[in-house]
This record gives sequence, structure tokens and C-alpha cells, in this order.
Amino acid sequence: MGCMGLKAGVYGGGGYAGVELIRLLGGHPEIGAISVASRGYAGHGIREVYPQLAVDGEYVAPEEIEAGDLDVAFVAYGHGESAGAVKELLREGAHLVIDLSADFRLPDEGLYGEWYGEHPAPELLVEAHYGLPEVFGAAVGRLVSNPGCYPTAAILALAPVVRRIDGIRSVTINALSGVSGAGAKPSVKTHFVSVNESANAYGAPRHRHTPEIETMLRRVGEVPEVTFVPHLIPITRGELETIVVDVQDVPEAEEVLGWYAEDYEGWAFVEAREEYPHVAHVANTNRCRLSAAVDDRAGKLLLFSAVDNLLKGASGAAVQNMNLALGYEEDLGLEHLK
Amino acid sequence: MGCMGLKAGVYGGGGYAGVELIRLLGGHPEIGAISVASRGYAGHGIREVYPQLAVDGEYVAPEEIEAGDLDVAFVAYGHGESAGAVKELLREGAHLVIDLSADFRLPDEGLYGEWYGEHPAPELLVEAHYGLPEVFGAAVGRLVSNPGCYPTAAILALAPVVRRIDGIRSVTINALSGVSGAGAKPSVKTHFVSVNESANAYGAPRHRHTPEIETMLRRVGEVPEVTFVPHLIPITRGELETIVVDVQDVPEAEEVLGWYAEDYEGWAFVEAREEYPHVAHVANTNRCRLSAAVDDRAGKLLLFSAVDNLLKGASGAAVQNMNLALGYEEDLGLEHLK
Amino acid sequence: MGCMGLKAGVYGGGGYAGVELIRLLGGHPEIGAISVASRGYAGHGIREVYPQLAVDGEYVAPEEIEAGDLDVAFVAYGHGESAGAVKELLREGAHLVIDLSADFRLPDEGLYGEWYGEHPAPELLVEAHYGLPEVFGAAVGRLVSNPGCYPTAAILALAPVVRRIDGIRSVTINALSGVSGAGAKPSVKTHFVSVNESANAYGAPRHRHTPEIETMLRRVGEVPEVTFVPHLIPITRGELETIVVDVQDVPEAEEVLGWYAEDYEGWAFVEAREEYPHVAHVANTNRCRLSAAVDDRAGKLLLFSAVDNLLKGASGAAVQNMNLALGYEEDLGLEHLK
Amino acid sequence: MGCMGLKAGVYGGGGYAGVELIRLLGGHPEIGAISVASRGYAGHGIREVYPQLAVDGEYVAPEEIEAGDLDVAFVAYGHGESAGAVKELLREGAHLVIDLSADFRLPDEGLYGEWYGEHPAPELLVEAHYGLPEVFGAAVGRLVSNPGCYPTAAILALAPVVRRIDGIRSVTINALSGVSGAGAKPSVKTHFVSVNESANAYGAPRHRHTPEIETMLRRVGEVPEVTFVPHLIPITRGELETIVVDVQDVPEAEEVLGWYAEDYEGWAFVEAREEYPHVAHVANTNRCRLSAAVDDRAGKLLLFSAVDNLLKGASGAAVQNMNLALGYEEDLGLEHLK
Repeated sequence: MGCMGLKAGVYGGGGYAGVELIRLLGGHPEIGAISVASRGYAGHGIREVYPQLAVDGEYVAPEEIEAGDLDVAFVAYGHGESAGAVKELLREGAHLVIDLSADFRLPDEGLYGEWYGEHPAPELLVEAHYGLPEVFGAAVGRLVSNPGCYPTAAILALAPVVRRIDGIRSVTINALSGVSGAGAKPSVKTHFVSVNESANAYGAPRHRHTPEIETMLRRVGEVPEVTFVPHLIPITRGELETIVVDVQDVPEAEEVLGWYAEDYEGWAFVEAREEYPHVAHVANTNRCRLSAAVDDRAGKLLLFSAVDNLLKGASGAAVQNMNLALGYEEDLGLEHLK
Repeated sequence: MGCMGLKAGVYGGGGYAGVELIRLLGGHPEIGAISVASRGYAGHGIREVYPQLAVDGEYVAPEEIEAGDLDVAFVAYGHGESAGAVKELLREGAHLVIDLSADFRLPDEGLYGEWYGEHPAPELLVEAHYGLPEVFGAAVGRLVSNPGCYPTAAILALAPVVRRIDGIRSVTINALSGVSGAGAKPSVKTHFVSVNESANAYGAPRHRHTPEIETMLRRVGEVPEVTFVPHLIPITRGELETIVVDVQDVPEAEEVLGWYAEDYEGWAFVEAREEYPHVAHVANTNRCRLSAAVDDRAGKLLLFSAVDNLLKGASGAAVQNMNLALGYEEDLGLEHLK
Repeated sequence: MGCMGLKAGVYGGGGYAGVELIRLLGGHPEIGAISVASRGYAGHGIREVYPQLAVDGEYVAPEEIEAGDLDVAFVAYGHGESAGAVKELLREGAHLVIDLSADFRLPDEGLYGEWYGEHPAPELLVEAHYGLPEVFGAAVGRLVSNPGCYPTAAILALAPVVRRIDGIRSVTINALSGVSGAGAKPSVKTHFVSVNESANAYGAPRHRHTPEIETMLRRVGEVPEVTFVPHLIPITRGELETIVVDVQDVPEAEEVLGWYAEDYEGWAFVEAREEYPHVAHVANTNRCRLSAAVDDRAGKLLLFSAVDNLLKGASGAAVQNMNLALGYEEDLGLEHLK
Repeated sequence: MGCMGLKAGVYGGGGYAGVELIRLLGGHPEIGAISVASRGYAGHGIREVYPQLAVDGEYVAPEEIEAGDLDVAFVAYGHGESAGAVKELLREGAHLVIDLSADFRLPDEGLYGEWYGEHPAPELLVEAHYGLPEVFGAAVGRLVSNPGCYPTAAILALAPVVRRIDGIRSVTINALSGVSGAGAKPSVKTHFVSVNESANAYGAPRHRHTPEIETMLRRVGEVPEVTFVPHLIPITRGELETIVVDVQDVPEAEEVLGWYAEDYEGWAFVEAREEYPHVAHVANTNRCRLSAAVDDRAGKLLLFSAVDNLLKGASGAAVQNMNLALGYEEDLGLEHLK
């Protein structure tokens, strides 16, 4: 972490998204210095907590970072906590804030309230850019809201379809997630013995990523309420979504693959293939891999989408957003994750 | 494997279903002798091939077993191979044959032909009893067709609903399966490195368990073509199905749980609970665990069903069927698997 | 949990050893009633905490159990906490207490103090029977100290050797353990993401099972200080020990297998085989599987020993000890675990 | 895979080492073109076989590559097959050959014969450089023999000790390996169901990496015959070795850590730390992480060493060797694996 180049701050650097940010920013050619804040680990060496990181330096308390000096700040707090921190960072003069929480993903204060509770900084909602560049373009402005991991996979698979097809009658998203998606905090649910040799649905039918998926898809077309059922499976990282779309006139699978090719041409990290994506095809990368099939008998369109929840689903996307917001190539420092 | 009690034969004893049959029959109080045939392993000690089995004895060639002496024969061959063996066993005088293959699951020769090819013994289709006793009653006659693992979980979850609800518009089954479901034969797909830390959809949209699910459900009510998407996940055993039912008037979840309680009362191995089933709740047991939820926003009924694919989904059910066909309690020799 | 038969109490029923005890005692033909105490879970349904258990009933507070009525009490508390509870149970008139903690494994108060701290009930040390029946005979008296999981595997492998060979120069035990050995309490160390796709040594060179192994082996022969290095590997249950013995005159492997056959003849759960034991050969059983090999070049004897840490390494052995102490066959209620 | 820069050939590109080589060379700034040969997969697209690779191009037959044009050739065949291919490549004029097989690791034809059989190209043994640069220096000449995965971890841990300590009485290496170490070929041993939830010793006491460890260590000091016991554990990649050294005068652990710091100063990929290495600390990196402890009671020195078997234990080291042999920095193209 030298002294030249951009100054980056990571807030909430003790969680899994933080670990990935530290790793990615540490290898980014334009980043010159990284300060990593963690309320829980302040004063501890980063490697003491995460020995797999080959970095020196200590976690500091958030207030020890001079926010006004930051070229870019990443906030990886939980929802509800993040908005306040973002507000403060912007007030203190941070040039660019990328928020990895859910706080700025729902542009509507009322909708946020319905799913999360009262919004701590509603006045900022209007300027938050939803950072899924392959669908909504490169980030602009000083505040980027990094998408949720499940919505990333879902919207990348569905947007090209929703854009082109009218009369979608129902959308069912069956998602599988690795355990890192449940966070670093130890609990009965994340105990190895609870997870290993098991699998279970959770959070359905009201998982909080549901309104994010609906809201963002409705920016590109009409879509009914989505049924979203996430499952926990015994892998560390990666997500796979199998999406069933019920529509009057089902397109051919090849046609859908063509839409993907068209919409994502020129983007480095999204690719559709005939073969169904495996989690292993995207794990430890910033990729999203898509595929499509048609169930002729039942008249349904099947979409498949896989991402690494910690990279394209979180920290990889955050760095990609930073690159775009600062005018770099989207894959700068992420070349080995393509 | 003493000399008193019933004589059992296991054909295809070298696969995973065979291993479980050997284990279960070895501990069954009414079974006196077990002969285990395997074309691949004939002449090899059973423990040499599966050291986790605490049994003596050798695999023999199928023709070394005197079929006419058998009180019960279990056939665990692949589809297409099984029907001929079953026919021969019945001809030679085996009293009861329980077929674990797909050969007698579809009662209609034409339908079988559409999904599997020409049926090798269509004349037997009419007398095969579909061995899902909790829905279709105790096995009668000399030929039991043991249900597929996925259909077991699906039909147990859906039958009580299909029986009571008209106007089901669509049924989508998302299934997760452990790798033992792919069989004991080594392949790139079952290599540890291929499966571990991954997950993928496969077989969709035309997995062969689809018509079995539809056909059997239509015995209890009306149901449209089913969309069935199985996935492979990195666990050894167990299956979890998340079923989304689109229906005009969605019942309450409690109502559905009540239907389950009503329909499965008195049956030892099927139980519905409010909590969503985890694979770990049924692994290494002969249970099926069910649950239900309602997605009010999207107007969908969600059903959850978990079984151990090698037990309730195969060999446990086969022994349960044997018990019922021979007039024993369904859980005889399976008490520790409740 | 009916009303006839023996009355059993389980103290510390909320941990993994407790879960196995509940399962095993629930299926034991001589146990009529089970009371399960847990300080953390008192008032909660047992199935609420462990849905994989097919039992009714609630956890109670320890003091709600009438200890004087118990035919047998199992204590599965942590070391230091257990001794006081055992003392109280015996004082109140429990007929038989089986302690699964480390508190009565070291017969010497001074040695206990050196590794664990001050002993809470040293006066009971003299009457505690070390419950490894295959080496030290069936339990007698009112207090059985259930061996540690690692010592179980180690002593079963080493005792026949130590008994017959003089001049052992060094003993190195490399042990691999599943994560259930680390207990049910969530922590960073047992988080799925910490354990999965990893492995590490821990506790060496002063793991507390070391003096237990040495002390008990010295009851059968001479043995130097043992080097014991346990490792955590990403499996739920099971332990494998690879033991390297440095001795002047290395015996043949066949000879050692013969010693095992001789010493363990008639015992249901211990078996030596030429093939090296895999954890999968013993998981979910009460077995110990042994093997031996010789490194001619380096002049070393290699011993291999595998157990399921929760069964033969804890609760299975506890029930086996109960059986023997009460005059039953050692495998009563454990037949399916052979 | 553009046209500028060095021309690289990979022979045996269908195995796991090949996959890693393709990935690493594809991201290497000095490599301009890569030809990948595979006898089994010739004519198939690389991504068709390994969809996780983001490369275009097809596997070709070995003879389709013009060896004389190659700046560097990597040979990842099995032992016995490799030597002939290497000989032919050198004859045809390949500038640098890096052999990942065992064929050139034992410098002595007789020793090779004892463990592997007759050597196919003994005349080349004298010029093969053993490519463990941190111990034996940067590769020189036209033939580099890439070390075995187990020897890499063992020699890096032991060399600094063997160099400084006389009178080592015994060395016992207990190694744990991920399943990728067993190769890509499907077999019962690598079937997910065989490996998952299990662990086992194998290959001992005569695993072929034993003489490689002994021979190379004896280049730096005196060492007796080594006892080497590898185990298979259910992880995809990574190796952990726990090494017990019996020596008259046991040094302090801090002293050993100091030797490591001294000997590996300036090398990018080897690092000793007080904390014991976890496989997760090195997986997906080119690192070797070391630690040391002392068992005072038994008078033993404990060494711990972890590598990723496919990177520092194979393909990462091969690229590192290429870098050094061609005069680049050792970490060129490997920066993200530090």
C-alpha cells in the first residue's frame, strides 16, 4: 500500500466483502493507499484476522480515516447502518462513495420502508446510481449503490428478456447461494456442521432482494411480482439462479442467447453460453455466466445465471463501478478475474 | 446372513442403491438369507468393494441365484435392463419382485416409449404396483415398481394439494440432489473436483422423472405439464425440492399443512412441519419432510419436500414396500430410520 | 419416550454428544424414559433446536430432573463443569453416572491440575472406571469416565503394541478430526467458510488428550512421551489417526494385525483389516477400524485407527459402557451401528 | 493468445496442471502465443472441456505443434511418458523445457529404476535442473524438472533445518492433500461419494515422492530415511504437511522461524509465520506458508508447511521457473498469486 495513486478507504473491512476489497484494491494499479476501517477489529492487524491476505497494515476505527482525502470510499456495512456513514462521508468531501449495502438500492423511500424500515438518509436516494453497468450504464456522480448479489444474477438474466417480451405472466427465481453470502458472523446457521451435507430454502417468500429485482427490472420493461426462493448450499462462494418465466409466446432458447450476446457485447464480464453455467465456472472470478432453455411441454422459458457472490455479486462489481466512475476501463485491476 | 427367515435376492448390488439394500436387509429381522448379484463385481467380496459394509459374503453372477427360491427379489439395474430381468425372475417363480428402475413406473407403453425407448416387457406394465404407499396404498401383487427419488419427494408434496385444488395453472419443481443420485460409476461429472464448490442445473427441461410425476399426480387430480429442473449440489445424499404452484385461489400455508397431517396420518415416514425442511433433517433416514408457504405478493403456493435419495428415494422405500407387500409393519427393520 | 424400562437422564443435552445420546437412548430397548437437561435450551422443544431428531419433549433445567430416580445419568458438560455435576448426581442417588467430559479421565489429581487446573471433586477420581472396555474391561461401579475421542482411537491402536513390545523410542500421532469435534458453539473457527476447503493443525504440541493417551497406555506397558498433533478437516464427523512408532525391532504388519485380532476377539465394535481405514468406513457407526503397515526403509511401525468421534468417540461408547455396566450385551440398541 | 511475445507449448494440457498452465500463461505479459496439446482432447475446444477457462482455441495433437518454434515447452504427462517427449522436444530445438512429471526429479538412474522402472532418457538426467529456486537457485540450462507437490512443501520446510542441524534421528511427514492431486481421470477413488465426508492414508509407506524428498534434502545436509504418509482429504486443492523431526538438541521454534526468514529473504512466495498455516491461507496462490513448534515433552521439532498443489506444487512453480530461466522476475504474471 504505497503512497502514489488514488487514496481508497474501506469501511466495514472485517467482513467477507471487505476482505475481497482489500485484496482487489491491493492489486489495483491506480490505487496508491488503502485505509481499512472496522469497528470490531480496529487495532488488530489485518493479517491477524485474515491470514490469507498478504497485506500489512492494521484495521483502524472509522473516525481515524480522513474522509475528505479519499478519492474513493467503499462502505460495506449492514443495511440501515450504511446510509448514515455514506451521508457523513459525502459531507466530509469523499469524492466517490460506493455503498455495498442495501440502503441505496431501492430508489423509493416508501418501498424501502416497507422492506427495511425507515430510511436514514432519504435525501440521497435520488442521486444514487444503481451500479449494474451492463444494464444501466457506467456509474456517474458521487454515489454508487452496488447491487445485491442475487439481484445482480437475476437482472442480468432477465433484463434482456423483459426488455423484449410483453405479457410475462410470472417469474420464479430459484437461487442457490454459498455460505459466504450469509456473512462472516458466526451463528448456528453458518456453523460447518449445520451447513455441510445439507441444503435448505430460507427467507422465502419475502427475501429483501425481491423488491430490488422487481424495481430494477421495471426500469426496462413490464414484469409482475417475482417469486424469489433462495437456498443455502454447502459451498463457500458462488450463486446459481434458475429462473422460470411464464409467458404467452415462448421464444426459442437460441433467440434468447442472441439477445444476451447483443445486449452484453463489449462488456467484459457477462457472457451467455449454450451450456448451463456451473458455479465453478464463475467462482473466484468477476463473471456472470448466462444460459437459456425452453420447456416446450409446459410452455416456460428457463434462464440460468451464475455469479461469485463476493466478486461480481459484491466487491468485484464495486471495483468495476469504481473503474467506470473514474473513467478507467471496467476491468482495470480485474483482468485475472475475467 | 443366517439361514432362517425369508430369502432375499439383490440384483445390481454393486451400485449405491444395492449397498443400502444390503445394509437394510442385513439388519431386517425377517430376512434370513441374502444373495447379492452384480455382473461387474461377481466373485469379489462385498466388503472388498464396499468396506463400510459389515457383511461377509461375495457378489455372485445373477444366474447363480436360484430365483424360484426367493421370497423377494430387488432389482436395481438401469432402465431398459431391468424389465427383462424382472420378467425372468417372475417366470422362474420369485414370489415378489421390487424393481428400483424406471421400467415399470410409467404404466403406459407409449409414454414409456416417448421418454425411454421401446419397453422390453410391456405385458407386465398392467400388474406393476407403483410403490408410494402413502399416496397409493400398500403394495399388492407380485411386482412393485419403486418410485423415482425425485417423484417420491414431488408426489408426496403435491398429491394432497392436487387432490383438493382445481385450476392449477402451473407447477415448477426446482430440485437439488446429492451426488449419489448420479450413481456409482466414475465419470467427469461425478469427479470430486467437478462437483465440489459447484452446483449446476442438468437434465432440464426434459428429465425423465417428469412424466412419472405428472402421470402419478393425475391419478389423484388435475395437473398441467410440470416444469422440472434438477440441480446437482456437493453433498453425498439427500434431495430437496422447492415447488411453486400457480393457482387462482392460493390456500393458506396452515391449511396445506393440515392437508398433509390429514393425508399422512398413521404413516411412519412422512411428516409436515412449519419449518422448511433441510436435507440434514432427512439424510440417513427413510423420512420425507414437507412444508408449505405462500407468496402473497405473487400469488403462489410454495411447497418444500426433502428425502434421502438412497433411502426414502430408493432402498428404504423398497424395504418399506416389501414390508407392506408381505404384511409386516411398514417400518419393520427401519425403526432407526424414522 | 414411554414409561416402562430404565430412567435415563442426559445433562448437557444441547451439544452434539447430547444429540447422539438422545437418538441412541430413544431407540434403546431397555430405556423407558429420558429426561434431557440443557441450561441453554431449557424450555425449548428438543426438535425446535435439532429438527433432525424425531423425538418429542422439551429441554429442562438440570435441577428439574429428580436425580435419585435415575437409573443412569449421562453428563456431557465441559471439563471442570462436569465433576461438580457428577458429584451432586451421585450424592442424590443416581445409580450409574457416565461422564463424557475429561474430568475423570486422568486418575491423578496432580496430572489433572497440570493440564486442566484444580480438580473440582478429586475424591471421586479413585472410583471412576475408564470406559474403554476393549482394553480395560467392562465398566464396574457407579461412575464411568467415557474416554476422549482421540484417546479412544489411539489407545485401541496402540495398546496391543505397547503390551507386547519393549523399547518403544517414540510415538507420533497425527490425527484428523471432523468439525463436530469442535463442539456446537458457533465461532470463527467453526464457521463454514473458515473450515471448508481448508485443513490445519491445532492444539499441538500440548493438546489435552495427550496425557490421557500416555496414562492409559502406561497401564498396559511402557511408552515414552507421545507427540500428538490433531488437525481439523472439512468433514462433519469422524477421526483418523496415523500413528508412527519408532522401535528397535519393528514387527511385521501381519503380526500386528494378528495381535489386534487376538486382543479384540469377541468385541463387537473393534476390527483390524489389511486395508487402511477410511473415515467413511466408520462414520455413523460405533466402530473402530484399525490397520498396520511397516516402513522398512525408515524402520517404523505405522498404525491407522478410525472412529466416529460422536459415536465410538463419545455417545456410542457411553451407551456401550452403560450396557456393560448394567449387564447387557455391549451392542444392545447399537446393533445398527456395528 | 495474440502473436507477439514468447511462444509457449503445453503438452498434456487436458489435466489439472494443464488447466492451470493455460490460465497462468494466458495472463502472462511476456507470452504471446500458446499451443495446447492433449492426446485425449485433440480437436476439442479448450472451453468445451474446461468451461471455467476464458480462452478460445482448441486442443491439438502433440505432433501438430512445431517444437522448434517454441520458446518454452511445458510437459505435464505422467512419469515414464514424459521423458521421451522431453527428449524429442529438445532434439527438435525447443529452447526451454519444463517437465512437470517425475521423470527428471531423481538425478540417479538407479534410484529412478528402483521407484519408477527403467528411465526412458537417462542421458538427460545430468542436465536437468531441479526447479525449487528458493533452495537450489534459479533454473539454468534448457531442462527444468519441476518438483513434486509433496516434496515442494517438505523441502521448503526441512532444508533450512537440515542445513543447520546435525544428528537428525528421524523425520516423519504427515501430509494431507486435496483431490486434484489425484488427477483429472475419473475413478472410484476420486468419485465425490468416495471422498466426501471421508479421509484416508494412501500410498504409505512407499509413496514415490519419498526418494525425491530424501535426495534433495541430502544436497543440503544429512538426513535419515524419511517416513512419508500422505492422506486424501475432501478439498479440491491444497496440501498441508506436518513434519516431526526427532533430534538430540531441539532448537527453539523462534530460532527455526528465524532460519526460514533468513533463507527465504527476497523470495516472493515463501513465508514463515508463527501461526500454523491453514490450507485456505495458500489455496489459489503460489505461496508456501511455513511454521514451527517444539514438543518439549517428547523432544521433537514440529514443522508445518502448506502449498496449493496445483500452483506452488505444480503449474505456478513451473511458470516461476520459466520466469527465472528466462531472466524475468520470479513473480512476473504471478503477482496476484502472492
